[in-house]
Amino acid sequence: MSAFQLSEICRRLVEAGFQARLEGEDRRVHAVNTLEEAGPGELTFLSNPRYLGAVSSTKAACIVVKDGVVVPEGLAAIRCSDPYGAIAVAIVILHGHRKHPHWGISADAHIHPTAKLGANPNLAPGVTIGSDAVIGDDCTMYAGCFVGDHARIGRGCVLFPNVVLYDFCELGDRVTIHAGSVIGEDGLGYAPHEGHWVKIPQVGRAVIGDDVEIGANCTIDRATLGRTEIGAGTKFGNVIVVGHGTRIGPDCMFVGLVGIAGSATIGRHVTLAGQVGIAGHLSIGDDASVGAQAGVVGDIEPGAKVLGSPALPVEDTKRSVLWLQRLPDLGKRVRDLERQLANIEKRLDGSRTDV
Amino acid sequence: MSAFQLSEICRRLVEAGFQARLEGEDRRVHAVNTLEEAGPGELTFLSNPRYLGAVSSTKAACIVVKDGVVVPEGLAAIRCSDPYGAIAVAIVILHGHRKHPHWGISADAHIHPTAKLGANPNLAPGVTIGSDAVIGDDCTMYAGCFVGDHARIGRGCVLFPNVVLYDFCELGDRVTIHAGSVIGEDGLGYAPHEGHWVKIPQVGRAVIGDDVEIGANCTIDRATLGRTEIGAGTKFGNVIVVGHGTRIGPDCMFVGLVGIAGSATIGRHVTLAGQVGIAGHLSIGDDASVGAQAGVVGDIEPGAKVLGSPALPVEDTKRSVLWLQRLPDLGKRVRDLERQLANIEKRLDGSRTDV
Amino acid sequence: MSAFQLSEICRRLVEAGFQARLEGEDRRVHAVNTLEEAGPGELTFLSNPRYLGAVSSTKAACIVVKDGVVVPEGLAAIRCSDPYGAIAVAIVILHGHRKHPHWGISADAHIHPTAKLGANPNLAPGVTIGSDAVIGDDCTMYAGCFVGDHARIGRGCVLFPNVVLYDFCELGDRVTIHAGSVIGEDGLGYAPHEGHWVKIPQVGRAVIGDDVEIGANCTIDRATLGRTEIGAGTKFGNVIVVGHGTRIGPDCMFVGLVGIAGSATIGRHVTLAGQVGIAGHLSIGDDASVGAQAGVVGDIEPGAKVLGSPALPVEDTKRSVLWLQRLPDLGKRVRDLERQLANIEKRLDGSRTDV
Repeated sequence: MSAFQLSEICRRLVEAGFQARLEGEDRRVHAVNTLEEAGPGELTFLSNPRYLGAVSSTKAACIVVKDGVVVPEGLAAIRCSDPYGAIAVAIVILHGHRKHPHWGISADAHIHPTAKLGANPNLAPGVTIGSDAVIGDDCTMYAGCFVGDHARIGRGCVLFPNVVLYDFCELGDRVTIHAGSVIGEDGLGYAPHEGHWVKIPQVGRAVIGDDVEIGANCTIDRATLGRTEIGAGTKFGNVIVVGHGTRIGPDCMFVGLVGIAGSATIGRHVTLAGQVGIAGHLSIGDDASVGAQAGVVGDIEPGAKVLGSPALPVEDTKRSVLWLQRLPDLGKRVRDLERQLANIEKRLDGSRTDV
Repeated sequence: MSAFQLSEICRRLVEAGFQARLEGEDRRVHAVNTLEEAGPGELTFLSNPRYLGAVSSTKAACIVVKDGVVVPEGLAAIRCSDPYGAIAVAIVILHGHRKHPHWGISADAHIHPTAKLGANPNLAPGVTIGSDAVIGDDCTMYAGCFVGDHARIGRGCVLFPNVVLYDFCELGDRVTIHAGSVIGEDGLGYAPHEGHWVKIPQVGRAVIGDDVEIGANCTIDRATLGRTEIGAGTKFGNVIVVGHGTRIGPDCMFVGLVGIAGSATIGRHVTLAGQVGIAGHLSIGDDASVGAQAGVVGDIEPGAKVLGSPALPVEDTKRSVLWLQRLPDLGKRVRDLERQLANIEKRLDGSRTDV
Repeated sequence: MSAFQLSEICRRLVEAGFQARLEGEDRRVHAVNTLEEAGPGELTFLSNPRYLGAVSSTKAACIVVKDGVVVPEGLAAIRCSDPYGAIAVAIVILHGHRKHPHWGISADAHIHPTAKLGANPNLAPGVTIGSDAVIGDDCTMYAGCFVGDHARIGRGCVLFPNVVLYDFCELGDRVTIHAGSVIGEDGLGYAPHEGHWVKIPQVGRAVIGDDVEIGANCTIDRATLGRTEIGAGTKFGNVIVVGHGTRIGPDCMFVGLVGIAGSATIGRHVTLAGQVGIAGHLSIGDDASVGAQAGVVGDIEPGAKVLGSPALPVEDTKRSVLWLQRLPDLGKRVRDLERQLANIEKRLDGSRTDV
């Protein structure tokens, strides 16, 4: 960790395109921290107004905050219209990215003699690399990683412990995969035969694009035929399950516990919130956004925002939820109507007999 | 990969019980591929009518397809009433099943001296086998697999990397477990005591039947007492969670992210779609089928098809969903009725005063 | 396994605070088992009335059961008001807790020279411990466990195979983590930039309290800044996903496949049932209880019991579900009302023209 003057951080934020402005004393800070946990030599921020109350009690040296937010005396402020974006830059300035241990090629890594390693391999004890695998330059693999026969990995990839890449699968450049994720296992491919399931060899691959980051304990099936695909720049949370033959576009963001069945086609820059399920053989358009726990059972238009199970446009689902809560009242109103109507009919019948 | 004449593939399909018939030129093919990705020496197929549009542009040598589907000139066809079943057989003919690397007993496997290994063991570097474990003939274990003390594994099993089998648990014959799955961990067994949780030792086992295939990153609890059981021939997708003491019958098919609580009893040939949840101590009858994201909170009859959370017969849930969408309209109609009724009452009151 | 006289077990139960009383012959038993699987030398129990039918056919020597339940002749009984609590104690008496293999410090463990190990380390082959890590006394780590640089682990912890603890993360004393769980991976922290996602270094930690037990294949993100926290005594099932910066109180119980987004605050002794989802930045009060598959999108009061997606008080959700099932009927009643009203209007109009 290095330390920087606030004025220097401000200058770098401006360089990075932020209209940042220092207010108060120009101190030296060495770390970024939360409002609650920041100490005197640390920089903090306020982005979510939910935490406004914590501003008055923070012990930080300086806060990155929007114009207009009142800051207690003695707390310096970097004013900026996008505190979250700015703090991300400040974290890089003050902390940098994770440094990995250096193993070179560990004597306890198991590397098949026919595998091809790029420059600067960094392979921990307990790494396995199969026959005819090809690994690009500057790749880091932690303990317990497994790269199957004929698999291909680009440059600058990082595989955290116990990542498994099955045979013939591929990673692009600068792919990061967190611990325990599995790429390229067989999908659920069986043909029914007299009440039993007969395995269909899964002879396709899984292919992960450049700059993808995959969370921990995800599973991405290989395709039965052809390829399962994750587009460049897409980011996965933890425990995401992708079925065989599904194709996911670039720059998507999927939150934890999402399940996508086989042969789905998902566009560019799609957002899937936590625990979303997508049925097989569907199309999800570019920039679509699916709310948490939604169950998508039909194609989704580009840019659509859906919610609910089955998933519908957000406003429709929200309206249904409101109506659902009003149902007991609606039921009572229908009962009242029935009673009133019976009374009217009695009155009418009575008036008739009167006549 | 071998290459075959289309006529030879056709002959083998007929042998396997398909009424297959070659139409067009008898070419040589070496692989099966998707409509989109197949090249000139490859066989493709159409099963899901959704992909009909891709038939006209495929570059494949031949398509396996039902009677009646029009095929472009120059594309040979194998006509057959079950193209999906036939292509499964064709994949086996042309590609075969996965060949595993051969390690014999790696010098870097850690095998307890009291463990008993069957004939032809194939144990990768980094495999651990505990004391008194018994392993059948022809078993393959990839790197990072762990077999606990007193565990038993049948013949012909394949454990992909980082599979964990806890102590005293059992696998039948020809069981396949994909990477990262865990069999026999302790379930959530605690007794409450003054606001804390006191652990109940989990002294039962998990027992997996013959020919079961388990996807990646699944977890199957051992029983508190007795056994958690997965019946012969049952197939699991990825990230399926089975609670302690649950018994699952033979030939079931469970899709990814399914969660089954403890002490459930699930029959033969049951289908659970993605993200289904089953509460504890329930019975699910043979051949039942549970739709994606359903939450089962009561027993399910044999053969029933349920959907929704809470799960109900599919048609009931679908009807409820439709009604839910019509609720705003229903609300409006009730409001109209109230207005009309008020008018009528006014009219009646008016007519009375008229009288 | 040791064997005990029933009278001795009874005596120990009384010591442990149970009002237990032996009825029938004082036999010797060596194990606890289920009603169905128990043999002649075994103790069984009935807690859930669902299994009452199995009492008459059990082959056990003795049953732990409430007063009033009729027990077949020849079957001894330990009468007790809390059979489940008592059997938990009996399991400890008869079976004890799991004994781990003894490895000492395996020559095949990879321990950085700067790591500090406590007394009695028990580290299997294939364990990796990073630089400056600190491990307390009496810790057991199975094969494939990874402890990152600068991580800290308290006394008496047990890490089952392939557990991963990222750099700088911490475990308290007596923490148990089941196979394949990952603690401290990066969360989904990205800043949007021209349609792409720019990684925000995740410089916080994950900190797990004393006596926590984590199931298999869970993932607990490190915080972006500060700490993700799991309170002392909290118990997790399998495949639970916790987002970055979330704080969970002590003595909670979470069932499998629960997903908690980032920056949530969860109180003491909270119960989350299977597949529950909690949105980010929410507060869940002490002793709250969330039903299976619920989706929590707002703060929850202490002691509240909620259900449904979106989650509402249990009784509200149950009422909505009942109403949902009555909707077709309600629709029919509205149609009937409309018809009747039309008739009445006709009658009124007719009577008017009559006039």
